[in-house]
Formats: sequence, C-alpha cells, structure tokens
Amino acid sequence: MSSYRGFIMDLDGTIYKGKEVIKESATFVHALADRHIPYVFLTNNSSRTPTEIAEKLKRMNVPATPGHIYTSSLAMAAYAREHWHFPIRAYVIGSRGLVHALEETGVHFTDQNPDVVIIGVDRFFTYEKLAKAQTALLNGAKLLATNADKAIPTEDGYMPGNGAIVAAVAKASGSTPTFVGKPEQWIVDQSLSMLKTAKEETLLIGDNYDTDIVAGLRSGVPTLHVGTGVTPTEALVEKGQQPTFSSPKLDALLLDQ
Amino acid sequence: MSSYRGFIMDLDGTIYKGKEVIKESATFVHALADRHIPYVFLTNNSSRTPTEIAEKLKRMNVPATPGHIYTSSLAMAAYAREHWHFPIRAYVIGSRGLVHALEETGVHFTDQNPDVVIIGVDRFFTYEKLAKAQTALLNGAKLLATNADKAIPTEDGYMPGNGAIVAAVAKASGSTPTFVGKPEQWIVDQSLSMLKTAKEETLLIGDNYDTDIVAGLRSGVPTLHVGTGVTPTEALVEKGQQPTFSSPKLDALLLDQ
Repeated sequence: MSSYRGFIMDLDGTIYKGKEVIKESATFVHALADRHIPYVFLTNNSSRTPTEIAEKLKRMNVPATPGHIYTSSLAMAAYAREHWHFPIRAYVIGSRGLVHALEETGVHFTDQNPDVVIIGVDRFFTYEKLAKAQTALLNGAKLLATNADKAIPTEDGYMPGNGAIVAAVAKASGSTPTFVGKPEQWIVDQSLSMLKTAKEETLLIGDNYDTDIVAGLRSGVPTLHVGTGVTPTEALVEKGQQPTFSSPKLDALLLDQ
Repeated sequence: MSSYRGFIMDLDGTIYKGKEVIKESATFVHALADRHIPYVFLTNNSSRTPTEIAEKLKRMNVPATPGHIYTSSLAMAAYAREHWHFPIRAYVIGSRGLVHALEETGVHFTDQNPDVVIIGVDRFFTYEKLAKAQTALLNGAKLLATNADKAIPTEDGYMPGNGAIVAAVAKASGSTPTFVGKPEQWIVDQSLSMLKTAKEETLLIGDNYDTDIVAGLRSGVPTLHVGTGVTPTEALVEKGQQPTFSSPKLDALLLDQ
C-alpha cells in the first residue's frame, strides 16, 4: 500500500471501539503522520463535533486535529446549504455534533411546520420526538438523515445506530429518507477534496462493509477492510463485490507493502 | 347485512377518533345491543386494559363491558402462554394494557437476558429502551410485537403506532418480529370463539385496510370497510382484494339491508 498518497479512515470499529483505542490503529496513524501522508477520519457518527473527536483521539494518542475530521453532521450541513434556500426551517433530532454543524450553517430550529426533518443519532430520542417528526412529515416536510447505520460498536457491545431511529420515523410517516453519510458517494467526494488526492491514489479504510466498503466501491476509491468492528472478516465471502484489501487489523507494516 | 349473527368491530378510526366518538358508530352499536346481536371490539391498540376501554366507551354512550373487548395485549398474553414454558422471562416495552395482561399471565419482567422481547405501543419509548431491547435480541432473545400499525388516528391527526417502535428495534438488532394483532388470523379466531359464531355468519368492521380488512380476508370472515379512519374509501381501488362491503360511515340502517 506504499503507493497511496491519501487515506480516508473510519473511526468507530476501525480506530477505536467506544472508549477503547485499537492499539495497532494508533500506531498506523502515527506512521502516516511521520511520513507526512495526508489523512482524513470520515465518520457516520453525527453525535460529536470535530473538536470533540480530535480531543478524544489525542487522549488515545492518535495524532489528529479538527481539520483531520469529517463527520456526517458536517456533510448534512453542506448538503442542506447546497439543496435548500436559506433560512432553512428544520425539525432536528440529533446530538450536539449535528446541532452544532447546522447552527453554524444558519439553520433555524423549529417543530412548527418545518421544511425538513433532519435526523442524526440521539441518545435522548423519545416517542415525543418521533411524534413531532411524524406530524412535520405528514404535513409535507422532507426527511433527511445523516446515516443509516443500524448499530454503533462500543467497548462492550453495540448501541442502536441512527438507522434504527430513522426506521421508526420513516415507518410512522411513510416518508423515504435521503441519507448523506457513507455509503453515499457524495460524502466520499467531500473527503477527497479535503485530501486533494485523486480517487485511485486514495485508500478508504473501514470495518463496516455496508457503509465503508460500499462507499469506496460506489466512489471508485480503493478500500481496505479491517475485521475489528461491525463486519467480521469471515462475513466478507457472503458479500458481492470485494474490498481491494482485507486485514484482521490495521497494521503499520501494510504501508511498506 | 341483516343475515350476520355476530360482529367484530375495530375501535380507533371506526368507533372513535382519540377522545371523540363517531356518533353514527355509537348508534350502530346501540342497534346491535337492542337486537341482542353479539359483538366484540377487536383493537390492535395495546395501551389500555379492557376495563379502561369499556369505561371510555360508556362515557361515549357506546354500550360495552370488559367482556366485549379483545385487545392485542390479551392476544399477546394468550400467544405467550401457548408458545412458551413458564416462567417466561420477558423484556417488555409497552403501556399499562400490555403490562397488565402479561402480569396476569405470570410473565416475569426483566432486562437481564430475557427469553423474549415483547413490544407494544409506548408513549414513553426512549433510546434507552431501544438499547436494552437491542442487547437482549443480539444475545438471542426472540422478538414479539402486539401489532405493526404505523400510526394511530386521534382527534387531531396521527400519533406514531407500534409499527414505528418495532421498526426501530428490528433495525437495531437485525431481528424479525412475530406479530399477534390484526391482520394475523390468530387474533380473529380468538374473537370468533368469544362470539361463538361461524366465520361466514360474522362481519368484521374496520377503517384500516391493511389491518382490519386484510385480517378478514386472511381468516375467511366477511368485512365492512368504513371511511372514517386510516384508509380513505377512495384509496380502496388501489388495493388488491376488496372488502365485502364499504360505507363512508357506520350506519344502523345497514343492519336492515
């Protein structure tokens, strides 16, 4: 993999699991930094701001600044800016990361006849929020969601992902959601423009076949699957198109191959 | 419809909408009572006990006792009794109606390695409950749900139905739910045995094509669709098999035809 000039890496299940770093992954990122190879962390998890994620990574001894991080919340803000006229009136279900990104973009938060319902993972999701989203959507609002992940890998198992929350809202309202996170090509293109590398000289690394690997396949970016998260290595055989590379863990030695 | 000897009637959208009775429906039920024709109210709504529903109906001047009412909560308790060995260890998401029915059946409530996860509509549904259900299901519990309704008609629009809650749990866990409520044949058979009438001499009345009418079609029970709730009369043309009868509202005059 010595020929790649830029790296896009997933976080949950690839660099860390919840509060625990995957040691080999930290070593891998240090090797990138030492060689001055540009990298971006691309995460579907919308709950934290880039600053918070960079701090978490630094505490785990993974070299990162906010500028190294692109989240599905930033992608949502960029998508809204591209597709709607301001001021966008939005009913938002989500955590600080999403709220912060949308605030910075100038979104007006309301549950009274919003133009759009925007959904990211929310540990404080309730039936009441579900009901407000349902009412807005039945009244004609459009449904946008950061990502469709069904589960988030943590240090002790899984937590419900945004896909579960979106499934409830979509069912209650009969609406079809538009997603901006992986595996959508759009968010990969945004990451490539941060790296300023071409598709074929960039490697996308992740643990989740349905988000990370499919994102690479759709975008024409080579991929490395790691078996440290959602999709076990042995499950790859059941999938159609295969990643370019596969490894049980991230490993700095891969950079010399 | 003078030839029918027993009536199975839906509640939400057929007899009332939330807190408001549909006047013509009250008159219809009085006509049944006056003629000593047996009837059962069959509801997918698991939130209330039969006693509470009977009181609500009496306040609305609809003649009813708890013995006239069969809910998806009672059906769930009967289903669990038939399919599991006691004591059943269950993690339950639901309201008083479901909790009461399961308690009476001797279900043991726990979130520690339950055998089954049982779900009914719950206005206090939260991400935390979703996470507990996900963990139990990933550890091998089986997923049961009272019903799959996506929305509940109320006096001022719709509220999220149990189908939305089940969609979230199913997505987070990758589990396939087993439903006991309408349109399942099983719950219709339970109602028929309460009425002690044969299928062909019983009429099933409801506003929701996908639950009420399909339940009749699957069970071989003739159906009357009313246009006062979820499925507008004009939407019937888009459906495959048609109900036996269709009327904009329930009407006591129908009994003489």
